Order: sequence, then C-alpha cells, then structure tokens
Amino acid sequence: MSEQNCPLPLSYQHIVMAHGGGGRLMQQLLDDLIQPAFDNPLLKQKLDSAVLEIQAGKISFTTDSYVIKPLFFPGGDIGKLAVCGTLNDLAMSGARPLYLSCSLIIEEGFAIADLQKILASMQQTAAQAGVAIVTGDTKVVNKGQADGVYINTSGIGVIDSSIKINPQAVKTGDCILVNSDLGRHGMAVMLERDNLQFAHPLQSDCADLSGLVGELLAENIEIHCLRDLTRGGLAAALIEIAASAGLHFEINEAAIPINEHVQSACEVLGFDPLTIANEGAMALFVPESGVDDAFKVLSRHPLGKSARLIGKVVEKDQHGLVTLKNALGVSRVLDLFSGEQFPRIC
Amino acid sequence: MSEQNCPLPLSYQHIVMAHGGGGRLMQQLLDDLIQPAFDNPLLKQKLDSAVLEIQAGKISFTTDSYVIKPLFFPGGDIGKLAVCGTLNDLAMSGARPLYLSCSLIIEEGFAIADLQKILASMQQTAAQAGVAIVTGDTKVVNKGQADGVYINTSGIGVIDSSIKINPQAVKTGDCILVNSDLGRHGMAVMLERDNLQFAHPLQSDCADLSGLVGELLAENIEIHCLRDLTRGGLAAALIEIAASAGLHFEINEAAIPINEHVQSACEVLGFDPLTIANEGAMALFVPESGVDDAFKVLSRHPLGKSARLIGKVVEKDQHGLVTLKNALGVSRVLDLFSGEQFPRIC
Repeated sequence: MSEQNCPLPLSYQHIVMAHGGGGRLMQQLLDDLIQPAFDNPLLKQKLDSAVLEIQAGKISFTTDSYVIKPLFFPGGDIGKLAVCGTLNDLAMSGARPLYLSCSLIIEEGFAIADLQKILASMQQTAAQAGVAIVTGDTKVVNKGQADGVYINTSGIGVIDSSIKINPQAVKTGDCILVNSDLGRHGMAVMLERDNLQFAHPLQSDCADLSGLVGELLAENIEIHCLRDLTRGGLAAALIEIAASAGLHFEINEAAIPINEHVQSACEVLGFDPLTIANEGAMALFVPESGVDDAFKVLSRHPLGKSARLIGKVVEKDQHGLVTLKNALGVSRVLDLFSGEQFPRIC
Repeated sequence: MSEQNCPLPLSYQHIVMAHGGGGRLMQQLLDDLIQPAFDNPLLKQKLDSAVLEIQAGKISFTTDSYVIKPLFFPGGDIGKLAVCGTLNDLAMSGARPLYLSCSLIIEEGFAIADLQKILASMQQTAAQAGVAIVTGDTKVVNKGQADGVYINTSGIGVIDSSIKINPQAVKTGDCILVNSDLGRHGMAVMLERDNLQFAHPLQSDCADLSGLVGELLAENIEIHCLRDLTRGGLAAALIEIAASAGLHFEINEAAIPINEHVQSACEVLGFDPLTIANEGAMALFVPESGVDDAFKVLSRHPLGKSARLIGKVVEKDQHGLVTLKNALGVSRVLDLFSGEQFPRIC
C-alpha cells in the first residue's frame, strides 16, 4: 500500500480492532484523524473530559445515539445528522448550543475514508452553528457487531431567555405551527435504503434549527413549547405534548404542509406522512397574540419559509388528546402506531 | 406468555425493533422500564434535554461509550462500568460529578430482564455517587448489528477547586502514586470471556473514584495531574502524560502493586500487567511536599488503602519518556504496544 493511495497519514485503509485497543495504532487514529477533524484547543489537550467556563444560570444537557442506515443518504450523512439532531434537542429547550461530544462505535473493517468524510461533515455542521466538539471517545467492535459506525453526540447549551419552553407551558388558545413541510427525512432515507427509484428523488430535511430558534427568541416571541419532529413524526410529538400538558389539540389536516413527492411516496408505500421522521422540522406552540411576529421571523429564515399554522389548543372535555379534522370537517383521534414503522432512520 | 412469568409491566420478554420505533411500544419501554429505573423529576419531564441550574464557573464535560463483552463479569456489569467510567473521567479533571446521560443501543432480541438488571446497576452506582441520570436516548438495532447492548454515558461535573489538574501542571520532582493494585479489571473480564478457570477467581476493580478524589481535594492536597488507568493500563497513561508534559518519568517497577493472582494470570497468558485496563485505579502526580498528606487521605479510603509511590518526575535530557527501573537497577523505556491487546474490555 503506497502512501499515494492512502488519503490519510495512517497506514491502514480500514479500521482494525487495534484502532480501539489503547496502543499506538489507536493514538495514531486519534492524533492523525479524529483530533485534526474537530481541530480545537480543548480536544488537543487529550484529557478525558473538557473543562469549560460557564456563566451562572440554566444550561441544557442532552444526548442521542445515531444508528442510521444507510450512513450516507440524499441530503446528509450520519455525521451531519448526529450534530443537527443534538443541536436541535438543545434548541427545543430554548438553549443556545455551545459544546458537543462525539463518541464513535466503529465496526472492524469500516473504511477510514468514509470515517473521514463523516467526521468532516460533523465538523462542518458544528462550525456552521458556532459550536465546538470538545470531548470524545472511540471504540472499535468486531466485524458483525455494529453496522458501520454508530455515533453518540451529547451537547450542552445555555438558556439565555427567561421564557420557560416545555409542554407544561402550553395553554388553551395557543396556536400550533410547523416550520416546514413534513416527512422528507424518513422517506428519503427509506427510498435510499431500499434502492427505490421515484421520478423525483427526495432529500432529507436534515438541518440545524438552533439558529432559527435563536432568532425567534431574540425577537422575544413568546414560545410556549418547541418539539422537533423526529422518530414518530408530527403524530408522536403532538400526542406526547398533549398528554404531558393535559390539553386537547385540534389539528387541521389540510393545513399540514407535505411535499407532493413525499405524499406520493407515502401513498405508494402505504405510510402516513404524519408518523414519518423529520430532522429539520419542529412544532411551535405560540399564543395567538404572538403568531404574526413568529411568522415574520420564520418567513425570513431558510428553515422557516414554509411555516404553517396547523392547529390550536382548544377547550374540550377530553384532555391529553389530539384530533385531526379533515377537509370535510370530519374529526378523528390521532393515535400512536402500536409497533414500529421506521427502524434505523435516525 | 402470562403476566406472572414476566418480571415487567411489559408484554415482551425480549427487545423487538418496535421498542425503538417511536410508537406505543417504545413509549411503554420508556415509561415502564427506563424512566422508573432512573426515577428522577428531570427525566420524568420527557423532554429531549434536561434543563439544569449551574453556578458560574468551570464545569467538566465528558463522554464514553461502553461495548464490553461479557456484559456481566465478576465485580460488575456494563451498567456499573458505564457509570463509574464517566464519573471517573469527570473526577480526573478534579470535578465533582453532578449529572449523567444514558444512551442505549440495544440489539433486537436482548432479554428485557437483563436490560432491567443493567439499568438498576447504573442507578445504584449513580445514586451512591450522589449523581442523577437526567437525560437519555434509546435505539434498537437489528439482530447481529450490536452485541447485546452498548451504553453511552456522558457527564457534567463542577470544578470547585482552583487547582489546575492536567499534564501541563506536572513538574520535575513530582511523585507518582497509584491508588491501588493494577490489572484486575482487564484480567477478570478476559478470564470470564474465555471461560478460563484459575484457582483464584479475579474480580474487576470497577469503582467510582470521584469520592476519593473529592476527599483529596477537600484536604487541599496539591494534585498536579490525575489519570484513570483504563484502556492501555498504567503504561499508556504514563506515556501519554509524559509526552504531553514533555517530562521524564522514572518508575520503580518493584513498587508497582500487582495482586499475585493477576500476576500469575498475566504470566500464564503472556501479558504485561502494566498494559492491562483498570476501572478503579488512577495515577496521581503530587509534589513531594504533599505526598505524606496524600497518603493520609488515601489510606483511610477503601479505594486508596493499597496506594503506593511508584516513581518520580526526574530531570533528564530525554523528554516525554517513561523509564522503568527493575529490582536489579536496570532501566528500560516503557513503550506503547503497537497493535491491540484487549479489545472490548471497557
């Protein structure tokens, strides 16, 4: 193997068990590949933890493991997903993301060039959000005991605003908005995985929502609750928030924005787009008085341009329920699917 | 399957893909098993992140994924290991651990009773350390794409002390101590995994060192550097610190405490105990003036009773090196093993 064929200053093109063994080969992987990818002074200290200066107050702390298949999909890859997902979880609490960790579980035999692409994607996404990847961990498992690479990202953000954003803050009369059309991530990943060809290829909506949330908060929009619409889609998110808040949500089905190609793919394959995972979509609960201002901010941001008002929190006898009203005025109760729909898409 | 046979309020005895699918079965797993195991108000809020109040100052942030095989071993299990390992990483920066996350990647078909045991072990270990598991994530992957369960724990601690604990603070003249005998974790796990029977069964040293570190700091022991001796053992830790500090460490081989049964097992199997992973052992760098006080604190703590002075930071021409002097006064340079020794023991 000549140096010219190898894109890396490593003498291997695939991960071997020793890359996780604590010896010299592992040092090389960390020193020559992982640390340079996330280049920052905290990581360079090679400590087991990152020491960070934090102003007093509220911080937000979150974790997520990403096990998506395929690792590279239209609109993103597992690295972009792992960073966006954790930034979004922080943003949903109203936090400004500051620091991420990156913990890798790599399967023996994984192509180092692919690992490098994934790390570069993580770094690019984090840097765009102004966030540093400050601590990490790398494990290697035997061939057949993972599926390429699994990534855990945990994150810390600070909450500057005094607004409490959570399901308990949702009130009767609140308007329910979504920032974008739904179902693109789940359908794009599924079509790619099963190698299904549609006339209009779908792209994942995978994106960092923290900038948009920051702008909404900076404009003092009174947000009561935010929720990214990942596993289980809009349906799972609304049902969970309604249950936590003990309130009744009435959703206007026709108002839910769904891209026509997503709709077609769902119809062909027999899926409900409301239960499909998104990675750049969120629901927002805003009092009626704040809706116009919210739309002003949303409409000027690339991730908020397709925002729509999809429903309201209403006064009803039945609490903790979500009802969906169709174009004919017929209502049905939205329920969680009982088993699974999409494993491994986030 | 009758309710009586099932130890859980779940209608399954093994994990199925739907437990990670975002639907009702996943809600059940979270509501009936995971949240009760870690019972605390923050987790009960079911938010994507935990909102924490933090005093201004320095915090420590760390992450680690645990992929050990076997999941249950003499002296612990993957749950205890995942909590101790992350508490220890925080403690090594001088931090007082406060909050942990728990992210699970579970293989389809994994026994729910085993999952329950592992979660209980995590909770017990965390509670003993006064730490809460405040946020988490659960993914399920197909059979054959993990090895039972992989656990990521990330952690946040606060640094109360103004002492800077890191390799750059190590000075010529510092004494190098270890808190306990070495090699028990790696050898215990390996013997268990390969089902090797020795006359004296070995137990992992898996333990939370944060209490002991807290006592040392509370007594104002001037600690320059701390390092837990996990993957790569004492050898890897000393070599890395010497390289970071640009100093020369001289270790007295005869002074390194190694349990005779670990020694025998290593001799039979041809391993160097200095490269074997520990999960309750650390190296401490303390100026000579502080050594007596350090030993006073160490000797009164269960995890410090076998503490020994094993070497010194010396003035030498060659920097970034560790030399090992044997009983005959012969010195050799300690080097990282080039490949791997023990995959999957931490």
